[in-house]
Amino acid sequence: MPEYKLAFIGFGNVGRALARLLLEKRQELNRRCGVEWRAVALATGRHGTALDPQGLDLGRALALAKVGASLAELSPEAAPPDTLDLIRSCRADVLFETTPVNYETGQPAVDHLRAALGAGMHAITANKGPVVHAYPELRQLAATRGRRFLFESAVMDGAPIFSLWRTALPGARLLSFRGILNSTTNLILGLMEQGRSFDEAVAHAQAIGIAETDPSGDILGWDAAVKVAALVTVLMGVPLKPHDVRRKGIEDLSPAAVRSALRAGHRWKLVCEARWEGERPRARVAPEQIEPGDPLHSVDGTSSAVTFHTDVLGPLTIREENPGPRTTAYGLLADFLSAVVGEAEDRSRAS
Amino acid sequence: MPEYKLAFIGFGNVGRALARLLLEKRQELNRRCGVEWRAVALATGRHGTALDPQGLDLGRALALAKVGASLAELSPEAAPPDTLDLIRSCRADVLFETTPVNYETGQPAVDHLRAALGAGMHAITANKGPVVHAYPELRQLAATRGRRFLFESAVMDGAPIFSLWRTALPGARLLSFRGILNSTTNLILGLMEQGRSFDEAVAHAQAIGIAETDPSGDILGWDAAVKVAALVTVLMGVPLKPHDVRRKGIEDLSPAAVRSALRAGHRWKLVCEARWEGERPRARVAPEQIEPGDPLHSVDGTSSAVTFHTDVLGPLTIREENPGPRTTAYGLLADFLSAVVGEAEDRSRAS
Repeated sequence: MPEYKLAFIGFGNVGRALARLLLEKRQELNRRCGVEWRAVALATGRHGTALDPQGLDLGRALALAKVGASLAELSPEAAPPDTLDLIRSCRADVLFETTPVNYETGQPAVDHLRAALGAGMHAITANKGPVVHAYPELRQLAATRGRRFLFESAVMDGAPIFSLWRTALPGARLLSFRGILNSTTNLILGLMEQGRSFDEAVAHAQAIGIAETDPSGDILGWDAAVKVAALVTVLMGVPLKPHDVRRKGIEDLSPAAVRSALRAGHRWKLVCEARWEGERPRARVAPEQIEPGDPLHSVDGTSSAVTFHTDVLGPLTIREENPGPRTTAYGLLADFLSAVVGEAEDRSRAS
Repeated sequence: MPEYKLAFIGFGNVGRALARLLLEKRQELNRRCGVEWRAVALATGRHGTALDPQGLDLGRALALAKVGASLAELSPEAAPPDTLDLIRSCRADVLFETTPVNYETGQPAVDHLRAALGAGMHAITANKGPVVHAYPELRQLAATRGRRFLFESAVMDGAPIFSLWRTALPGARLLSFRGILNSTTNLILGLMEQGRSFDEAVAHAQAIGIAETDPSGDILGWDAAVKVAALVTVLMGVPLKPHDVRRKGIEDLSPAAVRSALRAGHRWKLVCEARWEGERPRARVAPEQIEPGDPLHSVDGTSSAVTFHTDVLGPLTIREENPGPRTTAYGLLADFLSAVVGEAEDRSRAS
């Protein structure tokens, strides 16, 4: 059975959830997918780096990360403290990139992924920054190296959006899409429907760890715009930057307006959409009143959904409920398996 | 560019929609998928058979079928009148099976698909009968011959359900599913919500071509049970027959009950579900009151949806609106492309 050497760049909520998922599913991956793995490199934002070609103990790494201790003690010898040096020297087969997103530049994730592909690894990320800032380059580099650049978790966590289009809709043309892709604003709008003020709703979203300390990236629609740009770039084949997306956030929506719409059966949602206009996709993010019967109407809390309009099917909606770090981690695992096992039918489906 | 020889067994609404879709997309399939095709055999229920290794004119076949004329004139020499003889002698690369479903035996579709695989063709069907009555055998035969047995359109028309699980959810385990899979009963229940009697609703469904002359297969839940059995057989890896599905149809639901539920915000739907109970999947079809917020609540008319519960993601729902013969035909086309192009990323996504 082939054994794949794994490098983890970023070891926050998502990186750790991936480590737990890999440990939990080790026997199942052996049995069902014929895949074995070994962690060889770890880079964290504040707790150092670790490197061991013989294999790092991921369970111990999780325990150290939990108490905020340095990961350095995992390494038999001092690991390169610089992440790029670590990537270039770790000889991994697969790199998982889970550093925080940078909407403006996609860095440092772009550099990490470029270094990984350059060193002959599959490059897998949960980060939408590199998709909107470097997709053509990284895809080309991956093709040149005979490796994969995959990013299922960049939009709608681990729900299979990119893989659906990559493998399950051959010969279909995407005409337009429309969805709810930002959890924080959807949660805030739902809380306002229930009678909370805007500030109370934001505070609640922060308290449960959904909204960031500075929630403006979500509220002003930037996070949604980056996701729309990523979907257009990959699924419509036209690189789009977040600034190319017409964008309006939920900052001007009052609880009164939200509740008044609800009494009429409508719900305000931050809607992401894109459609072809002639040769160019036109993309926007803006609040909209959704009517009952629309698949987006019942998307509550942190759930998300996207409806695809194609030339061959009626509207096709993918909806994901209750996402979390484990969901995002699954997207990374799915990308790993797609990269190393291939996307053919020869995986057993028996449980 | 490789050219694939195609055989069409069945040339009703779906077979003809497939012919139109292939003609419409010919240049696009050349350009985007590197695929060319040629129709070499056609078998119909009442209008004869046609065979020409040099290529049959599908446009002319459509014109003849439209006026109910025999297809015999398409053949330079008399084609074998027997469908199995035609399959064995046509030397096609791909067989599309679209004969009517037989819930009890899966025949004659099973024999057609077996003959096609035996003769070295990919066997593609829109028919759920062979899936519930012969999946293990046909899958094994396909593997032995290095060919594919595919049936995306057997459940939820062309919506990518089987391909999603085959390619886009690696390493995920299906714990249970729950869905609305029968269009006719969903349409009837919606009409009853709008004030029609049961008989009026059935008559309307028949008038628009959704319900059959004898609508009992839908109303008693047989069609739904066959679909549940097909999903369990393929996605849970345990062959299940329609009779193994606990089944209750909508025959006892009164318009008064349906409207009373609706006043409370609930909607009666014919729900299909299956879940693991120990080592065995337990499957059932029964009417249920669906609460608002459930992704199934807003599934109207002939639309359908299924929610998958897995060990790695929150509930994942696939919803399809406005299905029709073109949708079903797309599922057959997608299977064809998956079989001959493979399910890798090397298909261009540029439009």
